[in-house]
Amino acid sequence: MFTDEYFMKMALQEAQSAFEKDEVPIGCVIVGNNRVIAKAHNLTEALNDVTAHAEMQAITAAANFLGGKYLQNCTMYVTLEPCVMCAGALNWSQISKVVIGARDEQRGFINKALTLHPKTEIVLGVLENECSIIVKEFFKSKR
Amino acid sequence: MFTDEYFMKMALQEAQSAFEKDEVPIGCVIVGNNRVIAKAHNLTEALNDVTAHAEMQAITAAANFLGGKYLQNCTMYVTLEPCVMCAGALNWSQISKVVIGARDEQRGFINKALTLHPKTEIVLGVLENECSIIVKEFFKSKR
Repeated sequence: MFTDEYFMKMALQEAQSAFEKDEVPIGCVIVGNNRVIAKAHNLTEALNDVTAHAEMQAITAAANFLGGKYLQNCTMYVTLEPCVMCAGALNWSQISKVVIGARDEQRGFINKALTLHPKTEIVLGVLENECSIIVKEFFKSKR
Repeated sequence: MFTDEYFMKMALQEAQSAFEKDEVPIGCVIVGNNRVIAKAHNLTEALNDVTAHAEMQAITAAANFLGGKYLQNCTMYVTLEPCVMCAGALNWSQISKVVIGARDEQRGFINKALTLHPKTEIVLGVLENECSIIVKEFFKSKR
């Protein structure tokens, strides 16, 4: 039951919430022991804050929940490949695993030759199509 | 009067506040029209949050003050070279200028071959010695 697809669907629901608020539709959840301990979606417009990416909010919320700043034994499911800022935050968090939906060739961290923490496993392409389509639809609606 | 050294001294006072709270002593201020619109120091321990770097807090505070998420026509003075996360946030903010005290060869963004926004001017080495010494003193006290 608790597959990568299961949790990525929850991240996609977060992305959908962002879409409905006219925010770039990116969502994420953080899971520890098969339990969702944080979920968030992009809120840069609502909060007027470039740092309010889904991942940043979720990292802060998960650390609050755990009472500690390191996210060892946690997995982040995120619909779009994290940007440089979010990859930097994930690196500091020492999170165990990051599962990514769609790639972001232009703004994602991978093509900047950045790496996450040595302890962090990265899984790419889970529900890639759905994660990609929602972003494309959003920007199509903006043109 | 409103020289780079003047504002870097304020950033150093922020770093000193961090030091007194047993936080890694890094401070920053953001200035618009020669007026300080945000100041912050590292609070990762107090807040149990890896994202609570001085720069991240100051970017959020400055955007709040301005009522807009872009920091055009603003300058950040920061005592230590920003990390990957903070450089990513500065990039999104489109800030006009970043004045850096001491380099951070190991964790700073420059040696990761990252750049800030094309519109962002970078100035290095303002009060470099003072900015470097406070960090070295902190880690010496931890050994």
